[in-house]
Formats: sequence, C-alpha cells, structure tokens
Amino acid sequence: MGNTIIYGEIFLKGGYAGKILFINLTDKTIHEEHVNSSIAEKYIGGKGYALYVLYKKYLKEYMNKGLSPRDIDPLGSENVLAFATGPITGIPGVPSPGRYHVMALKSPLTGSVASANSGGEFGPFLKFAGYDLVFIEGEAEKPVYIEIVNGHVDIRDASDLWGLNTFTTTSILKKRVNHKNTSVACIGPAGENKVLFAAIINDEHRAAGRTGVGAIMGSKKLKAIVVAGDNQPQIANTEEYRKLVAEMSERIRKNPVTGGGLPQYGTAVLVNIINQIGGLPYKNWQYGYNPEADKISGETLASKYLIKRRPCWGCQIACGRVTRVQFGPYQVLYSEGPEYESIWALGNDTGVMDLEAIIKANHLCDELGLDTISMGATIATAMELYEKGLIPSEDLEGMDLRFSNPAALVDAVWRTAYRAGFGARLALGSKRLAEMYGAPELSMSVKGLEMPAYDPRAIKGIGLNYATANRGGCHVSGYTVASEVLGLPEKTDPLSPQGKAKLVKIFQDLTSVVNSAVNCLFTTFEIGARDYARLFNAIAGFSFTEQEIMTIGERIYNLERYIMSLYGFSAKDDTLPPRLLREPMPEGPAKGQVVELDMMLKEYYELRGWINGVPTIEKLRELGIEL
Amino acid sequence: MGNTIIYGEIFLKGGYAGKILFINLTDKTIHEEHVNSSIAEKYIGGKGYALYVLYKKYLKEYMNKGLSPRDIDPLGSENVLAFATGPITGIPGVPSPGRYHVMALKSPLTGSVASANSGGEFGPFLKFAGYDLVFIEGEAEKPVYIEIVNGHVDIRDASDLWGLNTFTTTSILKKRVNHKNTSVACIGPAGENKVLFAAIINDEHRAAGRTGVGAIMGSKKLKAIVVAGDNQPQIANTEEYRKLVAEMSERIRKNPVTGGGLPQYGTAVLVNIINQIGGLPYKNWQYGYNPEADKISGETLASKYLIKRRPCWGCQIACGRVTRVQFGPYQVLYSEGPEYESIWALGNDTGVMDLEAIIKANHLCDELGLDTISMGATIATAMELYEKGLIPSEDLEGMDLRFSNPAALVDAVWRTAYRAGFGARLALGSKRLAEMYGAPELSMSVKGLEMPAYDPRAIKGIGLNYATANRGGCHVSGYTVASEVLGLPEKTDPLSPQGKAKLVKIFQDLTSVVNSAVNCLFTTFEIGARDYARLFNAIAGFSFTEQEIMTIGERIYNLERYIMSLYGFSAKDDTLPPRLLREPMPEGPAKGQVVELDMMLKEYYELRGWINGVPTIEKLRELGIEL
Repeated sequence: MGNTIIYGEIFLKGGYAGKILFINLTDKTIHEEHVNSSIAEKYIGGKGYALYVLYKKYLKEYMNKGLSPRDIDPLGSENVLAFATGPITGIPGVPSPGRYHVMALKSPLTGSVASANSGGEFGPFLKFAGYDLVFIEGEAEKPVYIEIVNGHVDIRDASDLWGLNTFTTTSILKKRVNHKNTSVACIGPAGENKVLFAAIINDEHRAAGRTGVGAIMGSKKLKAIVVAGDNQPQIANTEEYRKLVAEMSERIRKNPVTGGGLPQYGTAVLVNIINQIGGLPYKNWQYGYNPEADKISGETLASKYLIKRRPCWGCQIACGRVTRVQFGPYQVLYSEGPEYESIWALGNDTGVMDLEAIIKANHLCDELGLDTISMGATIATAMELYEKGLIPSEDLEGMDLRFSNPAALVDAVWRTAYRAGFGARLALGSKRLAEMYGAPELSMSVKGLEMPAYDPRAIKGIGLNYATANRGGCHVSGYTVASEVLGLPEKTDPLSPQGKAKLVKIFQDLTSVVNSAVNCLFTTFEIGARDYARLFNAIAGFSFTEQEIMTIGERIYNLERYIMSLYGFSAKDDTLPPRLLREPMPEGPAKGQVVELDMMLKEYYELRGWINGVPTIEKLRELGIEL
Repeated sequence: MGNTIIYGEIFLKGGYAGKILFINLTDKTIHEEHVNSSIAEKYIGGKGYALYVLYKKYLKEYMNKGLSPRDIDPLGSENVLAFATGPITGIPGVPSPGRYHVMALKSPLTGSVASANSGGEFGPFLKFAGYDLVFIEGEAEKPVYIEIVNGHVDIRDASDLWGLNTFTTTSILKKRVNHKNTSVACIGPAGENKVLFAAIINDEHRAAGRTGVGAIMGSKKLKAIVVAGDNQPQIANTEEYRKLVAEMSERIRKNPVTGGGLPQYGTAVLVNIINQIGGLPYKNWQYGYNPEADKISGETLASKYLIKRRPCWGCQIACGRVTRVQFGPYQVLYSEGPEYESIWALGNDTGVMDLEAIIKANHLCDELGLDTISMGATIATAMELYEKGLIPSEDLEGMDLRFSNPAALVDAVWRTAYRAGFGARLALGSKRLAEMYGAPELSMSVKGLEMPAYDPRAIKGIGLNYATANRGGCHVSGYTVASEVLGLPEKTDPLSPQGKAKLVKIFQDLTSVVNSAVNCLFTTFEIGARDYARLFNAIAGFSFTEQEIMTIGERIYNLERYIMSLYGFSAKDDTLPPRLLREPMPEGPAKGQVVELDMMLKEYYELRGWINGVPTIEKLRELGIEL
C-alpha cells in the first residue's frame, strides 16, 4: 500500500501523501521526512502539524542556542515558513477540500505566530506533487522559486520573475511546468517590498492573506512555489468514504448558507445581512450601519458584475466570483471576487460606495499581493487620521485621502504595494501608521492585525474572538457569526455576551481542526466535530471520537498560545480598540451598544484554563502537549 | 579674480564655475579638473563640452583598448553620464537661464548618443555648487546618491531612497541638505527598473526626459544628485551684460510667443494651433486632425485646472503650469504641467480626450520618472496593435487597451514604471514592442525614439529634422515649427519641402549652441546667433562673431554624428516610419500630403557635407574636430 504511513506508533492508511519536505534556502539543502503518524494523531496535519514542527524542531532549537524567542526577526533568516495540507486536502468528493494553510514562526505585522489560509488548487496539487507539508528555512541570496513536481524538488533562479506581478508570475511558471495539475503560490511586488501585510497569492486570485506571510516570502527572496503532480492519496475505508461523501454533499446542498446564499451571491451575501443588524463597520468603525450598503452588496455584485463562478478544487459550494467592470475609470475586464471582507474593507470601511472602485482595488490587491482586509482597514485609518487633521497634506503628495473617495482608494493600493509616496507609510499597517501620527487608538486592530467586517458592538461573541484569536483581529479563528447571525448550528443572541465565551472556545477549537484537515471553514455551516471524526477515520484510518476531535483542536489552539507567550504575549494583548469598548454604537440597530469584553474574557480564560492569557503547565500537560 | 579660468590657451573671465567633476561609482573616486578654455572656445559648455569629453576622454580610451563602440552596453558600467551647464546657465537676468543638459555615451532606447535637457533649478544650483559639468563613470554596487554642496562632493548610501518616487526622494534630500539653493535630480522606480525611456526628474516636475537617461542612472545605481551652493559666477563685461539683459528682456516680453502665448497658456497653447493646420497626430498618427482637440488644449487647461505658473530659475517667460484636478477618478491635488508634447502623447496620440486623465498620467510620469512622449506614444502603438488584433487579450491581464480609453492610459503608466503585467512590455518602448508583435511599422519612432506632436505630412521641415536628429525622433533638435507654423524668425510654408534642408541645418546647429549655453530653447523665438555671440562675449569674455557661433553649433552636431557613425548609424537610419512616407494624410487641412523625405534629405546631406549620412573626414577637419 503505497500511501500507508508506517513511521510512528500507529498506521495511517490514507489521506496523506506521507512525506514532509524541508528546504533550506540559505544553503540550498533539501531533505524529506515521513509523516509521523503519532504526531498526525495528535495534530492531524495542516496548521496543527505545522505548528508542532515549528515549535519542536525550530523554536526549541533556537531556544537551545540560548536565544530568546522575543528576538526572532520575522523578516530574518531565522523565521520558518510552512505550507501545509492535511488528510482531507485534495480528497475528491469531501466537502470543499481545496485549501491549504500557511504558518510561520512569527508574523512581521503582529509579532505573533503567522497563520493564513487559502483556497484554489494549490493545496490539492501540493499533495498530488507528493508532500503534505513543506517547510522553508533560511534566506536565499538571490531570488529563487521552488518547483515541486511529482516528488522532484528544485530550487531555481527567479531573477527573471522578481518584480513581476502575481498574474504574470503564475502564468509563466504554469507554462514552464506544463502539467495539467499545476498551481503556483507566489508573491507580488508587495511581498518583495516587504509590505507588512503582503499576501501569498495562488491561482491568480486566491490569497493566504493575513499576518504578512507574503512579506516573509519576500524576506527569504522566495518568489514562488510551483507544484504539480498526479499522486492521488489513498482512502483507508472506501465504503465508509463513499457513504460520507454522498451524505455530506447532500447536506451541504440543502443547507441554506452553503447551498443557497454562498453559491448564489458569494460571501458578499453578508453585506446586507450584517448591515441590517447594525454590525457593518463604516468609516473606520465610527458607525455600524450604512444606509447605502446595498450599493456594494453581493446582490448588486451578482446583478451587475458577475460573469460566472469559479470554485476551488473539488468544491461544490463554488462561492468564488469571476467579475468584470466593463467600462469606466475602474475598468478591469477579468477579475475574481471581491469577497465579503474585501468589499467591506476596501469599501464600507473607507466609505467608498463605488463597487467598481472596490473591484479594481481588490484586483490590485490580488495582482500585487496584498491582504485586502489589512489594506482597506489601513486606508480607513489613514482617512480618519487625515480628516482629523493628524496627517499633514504634504505627506500625501497630492492624494486626497478623505473618506468615500474612490480615486484615493485605488491610488493608495498600488502605492502601498510599491511603497510609493504615502504608500510607504500605509505599508506599515494601521497600527504603526496610527502610532506614527500620534493616535494609536484609531487603528482598529488587535495585536496589530486589522479586524474585519463585523462590529462586535452588534455581535458580541466575535468581539471576544477578536480579542483572543491567536493571530490577532481575525474573524475566521472563531467565526461565531455563524451562530449569532446565521443561526448555525444554532442561533444565539448577537447582542448578549452570555454564553459567548463557550461559543468562542468551541469555534476556535473546531476551526483549528478544520485548518488542520485542511479543508474549507464554510463546511462548518453544516458539518461539525462528529462529522470531522468520521471523515478522518474513513479517509486516514484514524479512530477519533467527536470529543477527541475537539481536544485536538484545543491542543492546537493551546500550543499556538503557548508559543505566543514565549514571544511576550499575555492577557494585556487580548483586548479590543477603545472605540469598541467605550464608544457606544452611535446609530442603527445596535445603537448604544459597547462590547462587554471584561466579563466575557474572564469566563473565557476560566474555560480555557489560562492564567493571564497563557495556558498553565497543567493545561498543557492535560492536553498532551510536550514542551 | 576667483572665477577667471586661466587653464588653456585663452582666458575666460566669467560665466563658468571653472571646474569639472569626475565621479567614478565603481571605485568611489572623485577628482576635478579646470574647465579648459580652449575646449570652451570650441564647444562652449553644456552639451558641446560634454560631448567633447565623452568622445575624447571616454570613447577614445574605450577604442584604444581595442573594443568596438558598437559593443558599449548603454546599461553597463562602461557608459558615462554627464550633467552639464554652460556659461549662460544661472546668470541672472539673461533669458531663461534655468536649464541643464544630460549626455551619455549611448542611449538604451536608441543605441545612439543619449541626450536630454531639463529646466527647473538644478542647472543653476549645480553651477552655484561649484561645477560646470559632472561626469559619472562606472557603476555602484549598492544604491548611492551624490551630494555636491559648495565644492564638497560626497558619494552617499541611498539604500533608504531606493524604491521611492521622485517626489519623496526630492523632499528627503532637500531637507537633508537644508540650503536655500538646493535642487535634486533623481530617478523614480522607472529608472531603477531600467524602463528604456525612464527620465531623470529634477525639482519634482522637471524632466530630462528623452533617450532613457533615467535608465542609465538606474543601471549605475545612482538614485539622485543633490546640488546646493552660493557661488555666483562672475561676469566678464558687466556694462555690456547689463545692457544686453535689459534689451533682451524687453524683446522677450514683446515677442508674441515668449511674451504672449507661452506665459498665458504654457506650451499647450500649441494644441489648437497645430491641430488647425492638420498636423496634430491622432491615434498613433493614423490621422492629423482631431475635431475634439480643444478639449485638451492649453486654453482649456488654463480655464479649468491651472492654479498658478511656476517658472524655471530666473525665467521671465514662466511657461510652467501648476495644476490640479480637484475631484473625480483622476484627482490629483497638486501637479505641474502637462506640457504640450505630454498632452499630445498621453492624450491626442492615444485618443484620450479626457484632460483629467492626461494630467493624472502626466503626474505619474513625473512621480515615477518616465518620459511622457515615449510613454504616450508607446501606449498609442500598443493600442493600435491591440485594435488590429496583434496583441492577444491574455497578454493584457484585464486591461482594455483600446484607443480613447482613459482608464487604460492611467493604468498603463504606473504599470510601465514598475514593469507590472503588460507594463513590462511597454517598458521596452514602441519600437521593440511593435517588433515583438510583428508590426514594426506601427512604431512611430526614428532610431527608436518616439516622435512627438507634429505630423511632418503637415509640417515638412520637422520631418526632415525627425529623420536626421542625432538622438532620433526629436522635435527640439531642430524646431522648424517655429518658422513653418509660428513664423519665427520668418515664415516658411509648412507644406512645402523647398528650402527645408537649409532651415533644418540652421535650427539644428543653433540648437546645439543653445544646449551648450545652456539656456532655454524658447529664447530662440526671439534671439538668434548674433545675440548669442553677444551674450557669450559679455558674460564669459569670448569674442565670437555670429558666424563663429553657427560654426560651433555645426561642430557639435557633426561630432555627435561622427560618434553615432562609430556605433553603426548611417543614412539608412535617417528615415521616417513608412506611414509618413506612404500613407497620405487621410483628412484635415493637410489631407493628401506625405513627406517628400528623399528630396529634402539629399539636399540636407549636401549642405552638411555628409556622405551616407556620415560627416566626411574633410568636413570634420574643416570644423576643427580632432579625432
């Protein structure tokens, strides 16, 4: 059985490619190891497995040299970057198996563990190329790219690719490899220029967007990874697998979100939904309700700009949008997206109600390799700083960075990628920008990561999640919006802080499992821990219970939190911008609300078994985390 | 007498700073020499003196090593770049003394001698800093800039400036030097990225634009030269000088062009004038008359976008425009220009009749360091290639590069500077682009340099000048438009080829003098060779006659042409795009016209004493050119 993994204490009978790749860019060495089945049993794959290796192999080695984790330079050669798939990635028929996860020891934007996730085809094709995980160490002297084709690995010269945008880079490498299952993950100019929120872009329009993983690639002079292959993973229990695939496909199809809203309107279906409960942050979170929001809604996108849908590999939901702006100043004849959070960040948060300008700005983010959320939110912060008179106009070199100005929005995006003019300051992200101009409270970020499109004054649980998400102000670490707004798996009151600590913990832990699977978080609108256990068992031959699945998630979450504590993070960092804690929502359905964070946080820490925001040794032991 | 130059065979009593600077960026050596008065008597200064040194010191040395001038890589360390002022530069009161000239052994765009000219304050302040000419040799390993302040010269680290636009670079260096007479000449991203028509930008909005001198700076990793100083040159004959200054100022004021059209509407006053005679090339020179031209005229610019005028140093004409686009997608709150040729290239030639988009595109050219003429003309060529189906749309990555599309225009500009997407191809200029797509005849260039805003089917003399200008398709090498259209110094019939050979020769030779003076070509709308002789005599103590002035011009023009012949240029290169020779103007006042080039060229070569487009040894001897 070619894909049975025999190393370790148990046998894995499917799901995995079975090999992990280690590439050192400093000395150009490449070696591989088998997937360790006992690690897989504790951390599955994807994010969890990568995190374990980052800690065990790299961070401990670093500390063993007598160095402090606090001194790790995220843009230095000591940072390690991982591309990770899991046992569900690339398995045909299972729900939305087209994703991969990116991890790194430290984020240049947040100083916490770097973590990002993307769809498209890269994840499956990496696995088909023969590897579950790839770790990138060191730093190349000159630009390189990595080619992984059916188990053959090369580090190649990328001098001719350096400076190119993500589209051209992808197109050139796809032609060069010329295999039907080829995918490219690369950086654009933003990553090369180490914009602190630069993204990794795969398949032209899919982004591992958050925490500046593109800047880490740039610092390593790694322009791209191109993967291609034909190695389909085996299935441990084909009968059970077939049954599950049929069942889950049917459930996903019947679910109102995964079978209705998402396929029809994409993620942007949320614009009107979130606005209607007064939780759509407007003009750098000064407001939570925008009477004009429908101008930039998923419905408007679908009616005016949608050409067709483009799914990730193997996905039946197909929320991906192919769009076009046919005429006008923000014309772009082929684009994809924008997603809900991108529309929000580039549009509602900046007050720009011109969907064409938003599509263009989103397109530029993909082309140049920028995280749309941090980009839009940083521009929004700059706009508030400027309107409050804190940015002198001479710093703007002729740019009119007022709220609601589409011209400034589009200009600001490409300027950021290239660090041109004021773009050099936007490239630092909202936290550093707001500090630079003397108003740190105007950065709507947690741990330096810009929060996305849900105002926790209207959706309390997501506020606790923002405050406690390991990577910072992130919605997908614990997407309680599913419950609080969409009523999945069950409805909770968005305006009540009651019970939200438990909800957040469950979502955060389950999400850690999904990101280790690796498949799409949208599956959790329908399938839960029990389903995940069944999937893992059928595909890889595990024998997980529902409870074990949740424990694995908790283990991953706690290990990540423990690593953060080594960097100096603690409860002091688990907070929200003062605006959300002290400025009552001025109008709309959530008028008068603030976030009751202290109360929720206390309960959360108790549930977590954390003291001062850090797992206790007992908790780590209980979870079986070896330090 | 501090500024009396005693080296050489004669004495120069004023005008010059007296010193020439030689900076080698490879080994970081700096040395200076006195201005040689016998060279000055033969080549004056500026372009002429620089050309002489480039030939005598560098090109001959190169050949003495047994190397062929044809093998000089314009972007290699063997190229030499010169910044040159002359005895009139920076002399208060004389007409328009605010310019400097840039020369280099070879242009990356044309392969001919590189030559460009710019206004602003850089020329005068370079002289006030203590130098008439600066030669830059070699190539720095890491980015550097050169600081020249009152005779002190430093090569400084520019790592922190590399990547910045021209505005920010200028602002930073001005603050760093902090002297009232400070000026910065620098490159933007286009020069760093070696866009073949990258410009050198000084004083934020002034460009030594043509022949890719910015790319040469980029290849040497020279980000900027900052100059500052207080050394005012002496005047040889102050009484005569005062008389001349008063007389010439009065004449310039009374002249209808220098005292009327230029101050009032800037150079863009020409849009309507040239269009009315059917000589305004439209949509890549498919037409010569545009019924909508007034939309982008100097009059429209003045009425809608002009804030104020900004003259070059010491200039009474003040044709420079400060402009603003207050609202809309092409908003820019502070800009300068655009000049007539820029409006034409970015607007009329591309069919874009949106003056706001043109102002924005022009602004981006200044910010990023691009030659507006080659930029616009290259976009126009691409548009015709695309409309004719020769560029597949996949190469454009969503850009809709049709004629008259303002969105594509503005996008194309920044993409070119950064070589993003299709910009990487535009960065090669129209000649290489058109060749790449199999239609070289669609590049409207001569010797690879894009021709500007005057269709020679309507203005015959300028056609001969385009064909024979040493640097390629250039209008300011022999601006016969002054005579053929504006009637200065006397009117000739633009549609007749008769007598144009002589006219072109006179304009080319006199222009060589002006560029060696160095002052502004616009002075020649009023003052001629005799006046120049008087100026040189009064200021520097020469005793030139009018005829000697014209001989100096001819000497410079022939030396440049001789150098070109060493690179392989000959009569075969003295031609025009076939469209101008064979496609009769389809409509407008010049309908039915082609350029009778052969006839004019034959006469021109006879007047020049050239065989096969190359000066004979006898001609060179007659002009006193030592080989």
